[in-house]
Amino acid sequence: MTEAIEKLINKFRQLPGVGRKMAQKYAYAVLNMEEAEVQAFVDAVTDAKRTTCFCSVCGTFADSSVCSICSSRDRGTICVVAEPKDVIAMERVRGYRGVYHVLHGTINPLMGRSPDNIRLKELLARINAGGVTEIIIATNPDVEGDATAMYISRLIKPLGVRVTRLAQGISIGSDLEFTDEATLTRSLNNRIEY
Amino acid sequence: MTEAIEKLINKFRQLPGVGRKMAQKYAYAVLNMEEAEVQAFVDAVTDAKRTTCFCSVCGTFADSSVCSICSSRDRGTICVVAEPKDVIAMERVRGYRGVYHVLHGTINPLMGRSPDNIRLKELLARINAGGVTEIIIATNPDVEGDATAMYISRLIKPLGVRVTRLAQGISIGSDLEFTDEATLTRSLNNRIEY
Repeated sequence: MTEAIEKLINKFRQLPGVGRKMAQKYAYAVLNMEEAEVQAFVDAVTDAKRTTCFCSVCGTFADSSVCSICSSRDRGTICVVAEPKDVIAMERVRGYRGVYHVLHGTINPLMGRSPDNIRLKELLARINAGGVTEIIIATNPDVEGDATAMYISRLIKPLGVRVTRLAQGISIGSDLEFTDEATLTRSLNNRIEY
Repeated sequence: MTEAIEKLINKFRQLPGVGRKMAQKYAYAVLNMEEAEVQAFVDAVTDAKRTTCFCSVCGTFADSSVCSICSSRDRGTICVVAEPKDVIAMERVRGYRGVYHVLHGTINPLMGRSPDNIRLKELLARINAGGVTEIIIATNPDVEGDATAMYISRLIKPLGVRVTRLAQGISIGSDLEFTDEATLTRSLNNRIEY
């Protein structure tokens, strides 16, 4: 194994969830590519990093100072998410016509992330600028996501804006038998009139 | 999602076993890296591709015309493998002091790979140059690997060189109960005196 290949394998290992074996597989794939393909791959990495910034309004990935969602959609409803990737997940819901606010993190005192470390000031500024009627909290349904949602809710409700959170319960197509207790408990507590 | 990110995701999908979700994860990881880190990643890809060639003797990855294994080890024993990655796998066997010969493929008529498409002429040339006492065939224990091993064995035995193949049987630490029939059958047929 040459030094350059070893180095490439180590670089691939820096990607999330990639171990030694997978990194080796990727490195061999690169070595087996045509030179033009390798150049195209390298260009894609460089270009994506160079052209991508964060939207100055919502904080998601953008290639201009205001992203395409913020510049074209209903700013009265803001969906609050933890990371840019959550925006892409939510966008799979075709019906949503509002905008987003990316916190770039969640509150987690154990990891040293206090409310000051996430983009809450920016969210308050957007609300104070007026025109916002609803904040939909879409943080993950885990301990950090719950704590962050609770904190945001207490912060914003006094401002007279409606605050909601994504419903938590059993997944569509899942099986009661294999649904974990925490989810079942939540779905029972949050049951709706039928 | 910007166009550059979409493009990067598509490039990552060209790597083996990478689907949409994993490619997205890798793309986000790249976007979250420092600029210097991204540059180091890109350099590693470019350098590995630029500096890596195939050893003119054995055909494995090398950064000079003759690889470090061919230039320092016992050339009397040649281990024949299908791909350069198999050399790396075999090198984990600390005790092996011989050299290699990479076929760059296996015989598979259905895929249009005949004996002429793999590096058999080069193997014969090495044997005819003299000094070779044993050929160890280390192709995979599957249909293609078996066919290739059989072909090589018939080709080389008449030259008076000892031809062996890696033993096939139950893996160390495995459980008879969960060992497949084909492996059990092979291990029974190839049983050794104890």
